[in-house]
Parts: sequence; structure tokens; C-alpha cells
Amino acid sequence: MSQISRGLENVFIKTTSLTYIDGENGILRYGGYDIEDLVEHTSFEEVIHLMLYGDLPTKSQLQKLKSSIDESYEVPQQVIDMIYSLPKDSDAIGMMETAFSALSSLYGSPWNKNNNRENAIKLIGRASTVVANVLRAKEGKKPIIPEPSESFAKSFLKSSLSRTPSNEEVKAMDASLILYADHEVPASTTAALVTSSTLSDMYSCVVAALAALKGPLHGGAAEEAFKQFVEIGEPQNAETWFRNKITEQKSRLMGFGHRVYKTYDPRAKIFKKYAKLLSENNDNARKYFSIAQSVEDLGIKTFSEKRIYPNTDFYSGVVFYSLGFPIYMFTSLFALSRTLGWVAHVIEYVEDQHRLIRPRALYIGPLKREIVPIELRG
Amino acid sequence: MSQISRGLENVFIKTTSLTYIDGENGILRYGGYDIEDLVEHTSFEEVIHLMLYGDLPTKSQLQKLKSSIDESYEVPQQVIDMIYSLPKDSDAIGMMETAFSALSSLYGSPWNKNNNRENAIKLIGRASTVVANVLRAKEGKKPIIPEPSESFAKSFLKSSLSRTPSNEEVKAMDASLILYADHEVPASTTAALVTSSTLSDMYSCVVAALAALKGPLHGGAAEEAFKQFVEIGEPQNAETWFRNKITEQKSRLMGFGHRVYKTYDPRAKIFKKYAKLLSENNDNARKYFSIAQSVEDLGIKTFSEKRIYPNTDFYSGVVFYSLGFPIYMFTSLFALSRTLGWVAHVIEYVEDQHRLIRPRALYIGPLKREIVPIELRG
Repeated sequence: MSQISRGLENVFIKTTSLTYIDGENGILRYGGYDIEDLVEHTSFEEVIHLMLYGDLPTKSQLQKLKSSIDESYEVPQQVIDMIYSLPKDSDAIGMMETAFSALSSLYGSPWNKNNNRENAIKLIGRASTVVANVLRAKEGKKPIIPEPSESFAKSFLKSSLSRTPSNEEVKAMDASLILYADHEVPASTTAALVTSSTLSDMYSCVVAALAALKGPLHGGAAEEAFKQFVEIGEPQNAETWFRNKITEQKSRLMGFGHRVYKTYDPRAKIFKKYAKLLSENNDNARKYFSIAQSVEDLGIKTFSEKRIYPNTDFYSGVVFYSLGFPIYMFTSLFALSRTLGWVAHVIEYVEDQHRLIRPRALYIGPLKREIVPIELRG
Repeated sequence: MSQISRGLENVFIKTTSLTYIDGENGILRYGGYDIEDLVEHTSFEEVIHLMLYGDLPTKSQLQKLKSSIDESYEVPQQVIDMIYSLPKDSDAIGMMETAFSALSSLYGSPWNKNNNRENAIKLIGRASTVVANVLRAKEGKKPIIPEPSESFAKSFLKSSLSRTPSNEEVKAMDASLILYADHEVPASTTAALVTSSTLSDMYSCVVAALAALKGPLHGGAAEEAFKQFVEIGEPQNAETWFRNKITEQKSRLMGFGHRVYKTYDPRAKIFKKYAKLLSENNDNARKYFSIAQSVEDLGIKTFSEKRIYPNTDFYSGVVFYSLGFPIYMFTSLFALSRTLGWVAHVIEYVEDQHRLIRPRALYIGPLKREIVPIELRG
């Protein structure tokens, strides 16, 4: 069936000035800046400005953006209540989906070039409150509204974990936020785009993205990768585990391989650096980092011929675990960051390239049939 | 930019055995049966069976399907509470989005060929409860759980409107449910498909579809068409209104024209019949039907040369209004019906054609840039 574009592979759904990927050479850039440089020299807030306005901010632009975020942390009580009214063992992304859906009723507004970016910034601030409270609801802790502090990353860590993070931890969280902020148009971003194409509001676009992200084929890879390390348990078990599970049983090595990157994912390198740095202060985390390193070595030995290397989700879990997050929150941390990519893409789409998304389906069912009375069917 | 598939126009995203559209000749078939025959000789429950199992049901299959629906009406209290906790003036589709998002946490389950259809039937039953309570919450009435009765249409009307509908009304509601049940892959169904492609659960697929449907370019046409009739007010105003608004001001005539149909939409004919029938018993409804007829005549005179005719949304509002629904519920009535098309398409996709949906975006942004320290930017 050659006319069907299965998975929309190689179909270009839009143009973008946000993210450039060169999978052959392991290059990822946002707005022309190498991801390594952005992590090294800027903050998540600066990257928000870059993605929404096309340039890194000046000092005063950055200050304004930070104020907008700080003002947006407070969300209405019924949104918090909804998160808490769901069973504690609900999927964390599902809880975000419910909260954003309520936010859509409360804050959704028509698209308007003069307000879209400001609305997007506030939406990202509210995402911080939502994710912090999803964690707290699942852990049986009291609700919280993040307090403004020096940075988005620090406010989020403080409110989520009820402690003051070290500078090193804040930097690692900030790096994670930058690293996961966008990656062109995976399924979640595509769901957001389809939603924006009917001119549905920005919050509903995020709801659709979360609904897609929730699926096991999209958002959960960091959790799955880390669960392997937990299953291995001790560094000395890594080789046996790899031989049994991957070499013999042919299980998929989670956190390895990517449709686009045919070499080491540039984000994986950076996550590895922060995983090493953070895990040094915690016995368990250090153990998992060491296991991850062994698995990486074995994985590269086995798969590099096929151009399969660690991807961004391979080491990110060690960073999140070292920060003190439970495994079930890893995908939500990804989502918190990716919210930026979702809103930046839908703004690009609605403002500059808008067209209602309406593909076709090819009918292959029965030709014309006549109805048989129900008594005679069977 | 010829390589961009704008709006995914003429991109075939899947095959289907559900719905066949011949826009040139005004033919719409579900599973090979003409829409006119289905409305005339079957019920919405039979169409559910047709779309999910590929054939109209036998008597015992129909009985089993009805029992499943009847058992599914009861939804947990927190879902009802969420609907009621949103502001009364919230968008009705937005309220559905929140409720389905909560249902996803409560009932979402992994895909499984043995359970998908049964899960879909229960989901449709729960949709009835959700829509009835969205209406009741907005009207300030007490929550309700639909009670089983002879048919889905009757249970829904009873629970929504707190009265026993006439047989004629039940038949009109049933016809509406059949008429709106599917229409290939518009934006809402596409959002559901993208979501299903990550193997996210069926409820989340519906959430994404609702998020898309919420946009003014997709679901709201029946409301907009009917608002025209309200604006006109009296039949004798129709001609002046049409001349001023449509001919001179070049406003778009809502409920007219369709990307696919180049002739009279077969659904519009059937809706017209029921609109005439139902409106006879109600002075206001009769007035609106008469206005609609005048506008239709003027519209056909003006636009038929361009092959623009009434579409399905032109008369459906008169039916819904005659039944006693407020205008703001028209899109939710559409959604209640279309839920069938959404779940039927995602089941087809996941079971037989599954592939992760991952299009591309073409990068047109800045080439490589070097970061300037923040003090020197500006």
C-alpha cells in the first residue's frame, strides 16, 4: 500500500526555526546554538526566551521573563484538588493531563500574536506547579505553590522535594530542562500541532501532547532505562545481565538507539557528565552510575557496528534519581521541560503556517451492502 | 515550500473499513451501508457493533452490547466532581476533556485485541454520563447517572433533560448519533490516532480528540450555524440578513460548504427531515426551522454554482434545539456520537496498522551561532 504514509515517516508537517538535528554527526542546536554551549553558558529561562522570541535575552528581557514565571506559579485550588482526587498510583503524566485540561478551562484563550508568548511563559510556570504537586500527591505530601527564587530550576526543586538544593543540583536540573526542551516533532509535538490546527487553546495543545506522551512508546524511555540498572542491582552483575537479557534473550536495551541519531546522542554525553557529578554524593546513585557505565560499555561493544549508541534517556534517570526523584516521575520531568518545545512549535504553526490538519484515510472496506433485518442476520 | 505537506492535505495516514465518502455524488457509507439506510433501519447501538466488529449485530449480539453499555453508565464520583468544580461557563468540550482525562487514570488499560472492543463500548457508555453531567453542571442541576432503558438515545435524553422523551424524540436523537458517528480522519480523529500511535490508552486518545475538537475551526459549526438563525430572529428577516451579511459583508455562511462534499451533504438531508418533524411541536423551533429553510434557499441560489451546499451542521442545531438542548451543548452532542468514530479508528490503527507517528519538520532557522555573554547582548 505505497500510497499510505505509515507513521507519517518523512512527511514534513511544518518548517521550524527551533531545533536543528544532524543525526549523522550527533549535532543538536536550538536556534542555531549548539546544545553543549546552551547548557554550559545559559539557563533554561534563557532557552525559553530563545525558543519563543528567536534570540537569547538581554539582562532586562531575562528579568521580565523571570517575573512572568514567578507570577504564574499560583494556580487555582480546584486544579490542585483534581490532582489529589485521583488515585495515588495514577500515572504521573495522566495526572498532568487532568490538571492541564482543567487549566485549559480556566486560562485557555484565543490565539493572539500580542499575547501568545506571554501566555506560553505563564503556562510553563504553571507546569512547574502541576509537576511538583503530582509528585507530592503521589507521595502523600501536602500541596505546595512554588516560591520564586533565583531560577526556575531551583524553585521547582525546592517545591517538589521540600528542601534547599545545592548549587550543583540546581545546575543539573537546569541542564536537564535545557536538554529535554525540544526535539523537533515527535508524536507528542505532532498531537499538539494537530490540536493547534483547529485553533484550540494552548493548554489543550499541551493536554493532547501529554495524552500522546503517556504512551509506552514515547515518553517512558528514561524510566525503562533506569529500571534496568535497578534490576541489575550491583555493578558486578552487569555483564551476566547483559549476556542473558540482551545477547541471549534479545531484549531491547533501553536508552540505546534513536531513529535520528546514528552516533552518540549529544544530550547523552551531557547527561552522563551530570550523572557522574551528582551521583558522587550518594551511595546508591553512585552504584547505579557505575552499573550504567558498565552497561554502556557492553552496549557500545555490541551495537556500535549497527550505529546504535546511548540516547538522551540512558543517563538522565541517574541524574533524576540523584536529585531524589522517584522513578515514576522521570517522564513528568521530561514533560516539564518539553512543555517549552510544545508551546514554541504550536506558536510557530498558528502564527506563521496555520492550516487545519486534515489527512485522508484510504477506504478498503466492504463495497455497498444492503441491510438485512436483524431477525435474519447471523 | 513544496516539500511541506501543509495541513497533511492528501496525505493518507491509514486505511479504513469504517467510512466511505464520495463527495462528488453525496454518498456516505459506514462499512458499506448507505447512511440513509442505517438511519432508517438500524439504531446507534447497531452502528456501534458495525464499526467495532465489522458487521451489524444479530439479536443476541445486540443484547450483549446493550448490557455492556448499561453496566458502564456509572462513573466514579470524583469524575462527576471534577466536572462540577469547573466554572459553569467553561466550554462544554473542555469539561468533557477534563472528565475523560480523569477516566483515563481510572480506566485506561493497555491495548489488547481481546478487550479493545469491550473497552470501547464501555467508554461510549461513560461518554453518555459525562455529557449528561456537563449539561447538568452548566445548568446548575444535580448530577445524574443515566439509567438503562430501551436504548442509548433514550437513556441519554432522560438523564440529560430530566424528562421522558417521546418516541419521535428518541428516534431523532438516535439518528443524530448515527449521523455524526464518523467521518474518516478530520483533525480530532487525527489527534486520537497520533495519541494511539504511542500506545497511549483509549481514553487518552479521546482526550486528545476532544482537545482538537474544542478549536473553533473544527467542532463548533452546528452552534455557529444555529446562532445565525437566532440572530435573524424572524423568518421575514432572512432575506435582508442574507443580503447584508453574506452577499454584501461577505461573511461566511455557517453550515454551508465542505472540503469533501461538492453536492448536498447526505447527512444534511436527513437532519432536515428530523428538524422539520421535531420542530412542529414547538413554536420557537418551528420558527428557527422556517428561518433555516429560507437561508438554505438563499444559500443554494447564491452558492450552488460554486458547488457549495448545506453540510451536516446546517440543520442539526434545529434538531438539538427542538429536543431542548442549549446551543452551547451542540458540539458535545456531536462529540458524544463521534466518540464511536474515534475509538473505532484507533482500534483499527493499533491492531492492524500500528506505527509510531513521527513526521519531520524542515529547519529554516539561523545557521550555527556562538553565544554572546548576556552583558554584551542587545
